[in-house]
Amino acid sequence: MLANSITWVTSFTSSQIIPLLATATESDSTAIMAGVLISLIVIYLASIIGAEICARLNMPPVLGQLLGGLVVGISAFHLLVFPEGGGDSSNSLIINFLIATTGLSLDGAVTTFQINSEVISVLAEIGVVILLFEIGLESDLKELLKVGPYSAIVALVGVAAPFFGGTFGLIYLFGVPTIPAIFAGAALTATSIGITAKVLAELQYLNRKEGQIIIGAAVLDDVLGIIILAVVASLAKTGEVELTNVLYLIVSAVAFLVGAVLLGRLFNPYFVKIVDELRTRGQLLIPALIFAFVLSYIATAIHLEAILGAFTAGLVLAETQKCRALKNQVVPIADILVPIFFVVVSAKTNIGVLNPFVPENREGLIIAAFLILVAIVGKVISGFTVFDREETNRLAIGVGMIPRGEVGLVFAGIGSTTGVLSGSLDAAIIVMVILTTFLAPPLLSFVFQKPAQVSVETKKG
Amino acid sequence: MLANSITWVTSFTSSQIIPLLATATESDSTAIMAGVLISLIVIYLASIIGAEICARLNMPPVLGQLLGGLVVGISAFHLLVFPEGGGDSSNSLIINFLIATTGLSLDGAVTTFQINSEVISVLAEIGVVILLFEIGLESDLKELLKVGPYSAIVALVGVAAPFFGGTFGLIYLFGVPTIPAIFAGAALTATSIGITAKVLAELQYLNRKEGQIIIGAAVLDDVLGIIILAVVASLAKTGEVELTNVLYLIVSAVAFLVGAVLLGRLFNPYFVKIVDELRTRGQLLIPALIFAFVLSYIATAIHLEAILGAFTAGLVLAETQKCRALKNQVVPIADILVPIFFVVVSAKTNIGVLNPFVPENREGLIIAAFLILVAIVGKVISGFTVFDREETNRLAIGVGMIPRGEVGLVFAGIGSTTGVLSGSLDAAIIVMVILTTFLAPPLLSFVFQKPAQVSVETKKG
Repeated sequence: MLANSITWVTSFTSSQIIPLLATATESDSTAIMAGVLISLIVIYLASIIGAEICARLNMPPVLGQLLGGLVVGISAFHLLVFPEGGGDSSNSLIINFLIATTGLSLDGAVTTFQINSEVISVLAEIGVVILLFEIGLESDLKELLKVGPYSAIVALVGVAAPFFGGTFGLIYLFGVPTIPAIFAGAALTATSIGITAKVLAELQYLNRKEGQIIIGAAVLDDVLGIIILAVVASLAKTGEVELTNVLYLIVSAVAFLVGAVLLGRLFNPYFVKIVDELRTRGQLLIPALIFAFVLSYIATAIHLEAILGAFTAGLVLAETQKCRALKNQVVPIADILVPIFFVVVSAKTNIGVLNPFVPENREGLIIAAFLILVAIVGKVISGFTVFDREETNRLAIGVGMIPRGEVGLVFAGIGSTTGVLSGSLDAAIIVMVILTTFLAPPLLSFVFQKPAQVSVETKKG
Repeated sequence: MLANSITWVTSFTSSQIIPLLATATESDSTAIMAGVLISLIVIYLASIIGAEICARLNMPPVLGQLLGGLVVGISAFHLLVFPEGGGDSSNSLIINFLIATTGLSLDGAVTTFQINSEVISVLAEIGVVILLFEIGLESDLKELLKVGPYSAIVALVGVAAPFFGGTFGLIYLFGVPTIPAIFAGAALTATSIGITAKVLAELQYLNRKEGQIIIGAAVLDDVLGIIILAVVASLAKTGEVELTNVLYLIVSAVAFLVGAVLLGRLFNPYFVKIVDELRTRGQLLIPALIFAFVLSYIATAIHLEAILGAFTAGLVLAETQKCRALKNQVVPIADILVPIFFVVVSAKTNIGVLNPFVPENREGLIIAAFLILVAIVGKVISGFTVFDREETNRLAIGVGMIPRGEVGLVFAGIGSTTGVLSGSLDAAIIVMVILTTFLAPPLLSFVFQKPAQVSVETKKG
């Protein structure tokens, strides 16, 4: 791979596109900007092509973005590589392309690669902050409080079963150390509300009882997942499982969420008043983003995660009368920033560690198989906690909870950034997310269509 | 200042907010993300407060964003400082705040400061790319071709007079070297179409003859200014004024613009077809941004500026039937990215070099006064080139061309980044932009209201 790309570069440099003006060393800022532009082009192409292919196969688009990231990343074409995934300036095709087209020097390439990686990583992190802000805006606190005991029990069981099953399984069956095991267990917890809601909407099942229970549980799941993420990520950072730490973090996560929501309700009328007073461009977006970034910063400063702050800010602003206008304006921003996150997360993942033909990879593969099993069984069990007088498709509820998405990937991303997850465990989580996301839509349309057909046929019979 | 901020930090660190979890060294990525979040909060606060104050004083909001940047930047409060402006990790208040609140180490602070500066600078550059893309989308190629000889003559004279007046004045009166003089002269050329159009709309003069001539000329001005910028910036980079270079750049700028527009017209139906085929989120924005970034990258690769590519992409896509939908989606993106550019440009500018009480600054001040004079006289002259049978307010046309804005600042930004402009010349350009922007709206409302009132009073008399 390395030898190939060097040859390729040489053939390009020897035939410079503009020999007249080719200079040995370009100014750094030009090369950095050119690198960021071409990285974004690669990311957007990977994202849109992957998403469209999946959409045509009735798969969730996010799955395609992940697969697109795998294709352009360290696992395959080396277009977009990062130091965390084992990339450097010599094996990054984008950097080699810059050397060929902009006359970037080899010394400058090292700096440009580092800065380019940092910039794209920060853009990806801003992307996930915006994603969670948008999910917060789409959540309805009142609906959350209204959803009956069904959703709550499904959510709790659906979080607890895969978390404990995954964590203890990894520790006792596979001998994984405690913190990575907890991290991987936590990554199994959160249902992807986006994927589930979209699939239910496509099946026109959103407003049936099963659909409502799933959505309620998925919303609670998301919140639980984020709190667990905050707790677990902090544990990973300090490297210890001290009870005081755990208690501090649970208390501060809950206090932060509840406190921000309560204070937010007091603050909301002033927010609306301020926005109504403003006259210049961005009069709604800029104050909303300031609020989201302040909460994100506070969450970071008290050792939680930025995304918890962004989600809370969305939840608070969802209660104002500006919510609809704000959502409309956040959509295009999420459209351009969120794909960066999904593509970068999987571009950083070296799926090569799961190559079954390499003997030392087999452990990772077995772990991935185990995680997928726990992820599916843990959620299907949760559906059977619903006991209702009416006939309820309990299997469908459990299946509806299967897709892991955004939050699961956030775990994988943070896990690989902080170095708490080994390469094989990190890849196993990504594979688990990809496969649960991949399996859920066809499974869901299968189990949902069956009872409807059955009841019709029963009547006929 | 330095001593103050160190004392301030010490008093904070000795009373850590969360002593329980304070660790000496946080992971880099957390500190970087926290730094970016707080930088964005500072930028947005400076932008919205400055813009709102100016809007209330009937001044263009962009002026307030610039003044906001001066307040938070190297000139005043040192919240947002950059290596280019003489900032480092010890005099950046944001970095000191991070040390106090997130337990960032002093060693980590140096790295975090550098990466934070690069990330914010790249975000600002993406901001100006999006700004020029939006200006391109708002421009109408057919209108551009329709505008009569009036607009063309006003534009040409209004570009040539300040350019040659400024350049030769700086060389022969002030002994400035050729390249910086050409750069500063070029910075005097481009009328701010945004400011002019907004002021004309507020005065309800957009659809009168004078208004139409101004807008037509300002659009042409913008294009000429961008071509001049591309030519001049490349000269600044290679450091030479070779005729072949100049010719190559003029030819390539024109060829790029014309070629992209012509090829774009062929490509437009396919763009619409592709967008109509796409089904996933961002189906319009992502292809449009890919197109804009590809043209930006090509412009960079042939030694022009990224913004020329973005402007051309906007101009091309403005001709598709998707233009209106695209504009609506680009607005929120511009709302959050463009302010970063304006605030960062002036945060990097040390206005202290224009302090009249320091003797060695007086040259810079005299230069600023000269530039402002040339900037105003050069544009007012252009208005008097209009010879029409009907009575025309020729003074108003000239005054309407006075405000310099986006493009002038782009010159200052690129000039300070590439190091071609000395501190005093850079600051003189910023002062020129600020003052022409500041003076134009009241002057324009003055000269436009007078003739209208006169004609009414004449009829009465």
